[in-house]
Amino acid sequence: MDLQKIADEIVVSLQPRLGEGKVADYIPELARIDPRQFGIAITTVDGETFKAGDADTSFSIQSISKVFMLTLALGKAGEQVWKRVGREPSGSSFNSIVQLEHEHGIPRNPFINAGAIVISDMVLAGHAPREAIGEYLRFMRYLADDETLAIDEKVAQSEQRTGYRNFALANFMRGFGNLDHPVEHTLGVYFHQCALALSCVQLSHAGLFLANRGTNPLTGFSVVSPKRARRINAMMLMCGHYDGSGDFAYNVGLPGKSGVGGGILAIAPGKASIGVWSPGLNKVGNSALGSAALEMLASRTGWSVFGT
Amino acid sequence: MDLQKIADEIVVSLQPRLGEGKVADYIPELARIDPRQFGIAITTVDGETFKAGDADTSFSIQSISKVFMLTLALGKAGEQVWKRVGREPSGSSFNSIVQLEHEHGIPRNPFINAGAIVISDMVLAGHAPREAIGEYLRFMRYLADDETLAIDEKVAQSEQRTGYRNFALANFMRGFGNLDHPVEHTLGVYFHQCALALSCVQLSHAGLFLANRGTNPLTGFSVVSPKRARRINAMMLMCGHYDGSGDFAYNVGLPGKSGVGGGILAIAPGKASIGVWSPGLNKVGNSALGSAALEMLASRTGWSVFGT
Amino acid sequence: MDLQKIADEIVVSLQPRLGEGKVADYIPELARIDPRQFGIAITTVDGETFKAGDADTSFSIQSISKVFMLTLALGKAGEQVWKRVGREPSGSSFNSIVQLEHEHGIPRNPFINAGAIVISDMVLAGHAPREAIGEYLRFMRYLADDETLAIDEKVAQSEQRTGYRNFALANFMRGFGNLDHPVEHTLGVYFHQCALALSCVQLSHAGLFLANRGTNPLTGFSVVSPKRARRINAMMLMCGHYDGSGDFAYNVGLPGKSGVGGGILAIAPGKASIGVWSPGLNKVGNSALGSAALEMLASRTGWSVFGT
Amino acid sequence: MDLQKIADEIVVSLQPRLGEGKVADYIPELARIDPRQFGIAITTVDGETFKAGDADTSFSIQSISKVFMLTLALGKAGEQVWKRVGREPSGSSFNSIVQLEHEHGIPRNPFINAGAIVISDMVLAGHAPREAIGEYLRFMRYLADDETLAIDEKVAQSEQRTGYRNFALANFMRGFGNLDHPVEHTLGVYFHQCALALSCVQLSHAGLFLANRGTNPLTGFSVVSPKRARRINAMMLMCGHYDGSGDFAYNVGLPGKSGVGGGILAIAPGKASIGVWSPGLNKVGNSALGSAALEMLASRTGWSVFGT
Repeated sequence: MDLQKIADEIVVSLQPRLGEGKVADYIPELARIDPRQFGIAITTVDGETFKAGDADTSFSIQSISKVFMLTLALGKAGEQVWKRVGREPSGSSFNSIVQLEHEHGIPRNPFINAGAIVISDMVLAGHAPREAIGEYLRFMRYLADDETLAIDEKVAQSEQRTGYRNFALANFMRGFGNLDHPVEHTLGVYFHQCALALSCVQLSHAGLFLANRGTNPLTGFSVVSPKRARRINAMMLMCGHYDGSGDFAYNVGLPGKSGVGGGILAIAPGKASIGVWSPGLNKVGNSALGSAALEMLASRTGWSVFGT
Repeated sequence: MDLQKIADEIVVSLQPRLGEGKVADYIPELARIDPRQFGIAITTVDGETFKAGDADTSFSIQSISKVFMLTLALGKAGEQVWKRVGREPSGSSFNSIVQLEHEHGIPRNPFINAGAIVISDMVLAGHAPREAIGEYLRFMRYLADDETLAIDEKVAQSEQRTGYRNFALANFMRGFGNLDHPVEHTLGVYFHQCALALSCVQLSHAGLFLANRGTNPLTGFSVVSPKRARRINAMMLMCGHYDGSGDFAYNVGLPGKSGVGGGILAIAPGKASIGVWSPGLNKVGNSALGSAALEMLASRTGWSVFGT
Repeated sequence: MDLQKIADEIVVSLQPRLGEGKVADYIPELARIDPRQFGIAITTVDGETFKAGDADTSFSIQSISKVFMLTLALGKAGEQVWKRVGREPSGSSFNSIVQLEHEHGIPRNPFINAGAIVISDMVLAGHAPREAIGEYLRFMRYLADDETLAIDEKVAQSEQRTGYRNFALANFMRGFGNLDHPVEHTLGVYFHQCALALSCVQLSHAGLFLANRGTNPLTGFSVVSPKRARRINAMMLMCGHYDGSGDFAYNVGLPGKSGVGGGILAIAPGKASIGVWSPGLNKVGNSALGSAALEMLASRTGWSVFGT
Repeated sequence: MDLQKIADEIVVSLQPRLGEGKVADYIPELARIDPRQFGIAITTVDGETFKAGDADTSFSIQSISKVFMLTLALGKAGEQVWKRVGREPSGSSFNSIVQLEHEHGIPRNPFINAGAIVISDMVLAGHAPREAIGEYLRFMRYLADDETLAIDEKVAQSEQRTGYRNFALANFMRGFGNLDHPVEHTLGVYFHQCALALSCVQLSHAGLFLANRGTNPLTGFSVVSPKRARRINAMMLMCGHYDGSGDFAYNVGLPGKSGVGGGILAIAPGKASIGVWSPGLNKVGNSALGSAALEMLASRTGWSVFGT
């Protein structure tokens, strides 16, 4: 299987659709991005990276960070994590507060905003926000084996100023006793984790441990146990694309996590970690071309977890 | 890998837990069943069947039928099916009517009751209920390669008399124009499909095409294309256990579909089809011991779709 | 105060707006009605009737019947009625099923469809539907002091054939154990009570006991105690106009009950009973011109219960 | 009618029930209050005040302030107020956020928390919080004709520190563009308005204009037009007791507004303004003894707006 050829063909076939979808506009800093960009990077478990298009351009990973923060939180609190956040798809949009009221402040899963904020609160664990953000950044550099990774402070500030919905969610959960820290601290961590800038190549490296039984084959570092890697993949498949998770499973068939910056991390267990990026989003908030690219990739490689 | 030994060990280790959970009591005929039963049958894609416990005892497949009816409906209407029913997890219980109102009569997915009723309506397709039920029964006999399969008329009648919630759902959707036939006809099909009695062995045979790229290796019959088999598996993983689907994906990691009769069909793509059964249900309505058995099986075989 | 002059002026000033609103189209028989009609009848507690416009034309009272059926049910079951139905505004549309699920089959109040169906079930009280309908018809003739009142069988049949939403509500409540009779029987009563045809004059007579401490001054018959009359008025004010009850209280300030046939019964306690009718409905399902007429009437008479 | 005797009898008959209900504990400062207190003051439109029990003890008026702030906002913005807040009962608890999401940030009415926060935002109107609070305090002193009225700063601070749910509501609405000022400013006003301390006597004076066509008979000052007084009364009746408004209308039959401090202001249009207070709350958050007292009062005076 010639992965380079597949990547190149995907870029060519998406060329006419560049600009499709709608760039996220609720974070002012992200609204300015040129939508006519697309990149893909495939890193296999034996350490080879294949890339095409704008695969080295940095973008804001936004909600993709939730996968890495969940990994950190599981490392700190183990299965206790699930006392404060559920594991079920939400059946509603990424920032809905309705279910939170019906279920008394326990978010449905760690990948909707409410759940991710609880996870940030767990990673914070009594430390200053600056320290938790530092820990996250070190973890990401370690995963991607790249010391140049950085958080885009402007994006973080932009969200801090306009993220009313997230302030609402956090205060709401604090009212139910499901946040341990001042709302400003927890959200400080949350906004910064989202503002990490990665390229498709870096993203595919950072997620590679999930494709390889919890160990990063680039560095040999063991990140999580094989069982935990499977479980994180399961959460990604079930809840990684908000209210488009079913569609993504149906059409692509790979665990994946999207962000409103237009990136998607997808995992082919035992095979590869894939980073795609294109800023235009579909109706449920996932990268339109990114989803299309992964559908093509899964179809050509036969990597769907649901059968060949 | 000695699957017979694994099956035997599962039976032994579940012995002390026999009777756990709560037998479904809302269908009077099902409420009488002895809860202290457990069976498992594993049929591999090369046609071997391994069984243990009460693997030859018949039980009411109930909602597991939704997988087979979806297969039939996709055969008739193709991707048009998705105009009348969604593909997303529901985030609520199997018989909730709330989402149906918010989404104007379009059920979230084909495996909650509302969605399955729409699927039954599609299979009905202008025929008399008796004919549609006959078609379904022939299809099931063909899939399981077993002419003895039969519908338990007493169970069907029992549901017909007491299935108020399903009458509510059906009338509700009819009001939105999402049912083409009289409510009594569509539900006649629905109650009969649920009342099919299968043993674990028969169930594992009937589902085998989903593990084997759409073709039943026992008979050589092609049932669906490989792509459609993957897609049906995807729907099972996302929505097969109602509001416990996330938990099942997290703990088991296989596409599966449960029924309130206590049965579960699980698919290990490329490997095997598994039927388990034990009447006691957990809080979200899935077989308690059946779920436990599949977790053990996935753990010992490494069959999780999310990595080894 | 010259009530005849006020009535005449209202007719004149609404003349240019005749035809406003949207005739209810979900009951086929009602959809055919000429929307350019308006009538008003005011009957005072000293027994005088003032009328103008199409005040003698019969129309289908539809949900206005819920007031009279509540009166009957309170007569039979007393305050026990409130064990099966609430007394709070619903905050949702007249035929919503959502709240019913959240509150386990107990409707919010007797004037939304679900609540009214429970009330019909109480009036049925073990009898045949035909007998309950007969009892209701006799009660209405007695209230209006008019033996000619009749149920429009065609309208009743029309609803019976197309009232899927009501079948859904009834089955839903039956599933929760909040209906005592077969759904078809209870709804048979419900559809017939709604299909009663009254003119504005007849309606104002039928409601007069509510304006006069529970006694009909036309006949001298005591219908309910003064306390019960007040309480029924309270329910009308709180819940009589579905999700437009707040607006009606704000603009009109009188207890009232609307029906999708375009009629409204309004009560000025201690003063008068008013029947208005015009088929075009506003967005929340209440007669557009009827509401406007009552606003004018309340303004000119100073009859608002909230002060002069 | 001997109102003094009625007030005295109410105090006597409630004596054995002192301490009933549950003191609001979510505001720490309020949780410490001795529940065994009850007061009532009736001020008639001809300026006489009748009082009994702890009628001169100050308590925190909390949500009763919403009536006075609505009056202020209507004075500033007129009917434009209703573009940012609805007029319908909510059918849910006082601090629910669910409906806010379904209705895109427009609260159902000005008396649930979300709606009251929007009203505070309107009164703020570009000024500093301190100024708006000052304006409110002056208005209240003017209404009650009492320069000693004061805000309990400790209560305001207590809410500011623990009012997560209100911060959630405010941020949520800000996200929808329905707040014009920083959340901290608007809530600063809100928490201070709630922290006003009044006795039953003072409360009955402050509300008297609503019973007297908009004019305070104690001072002769015209506060609002007769029409606006009626409309505010209508809102109180419809929405003044959260999800117990229907019960209050049914049992008492007077416009009223409760607060979690245990106070209730009730208006008998054309007759009197009544202040009652007892800290223990019933299940829906209204003063248990206060509601009982008003039911007795309405029954003995025949003041129900729904008839004598």
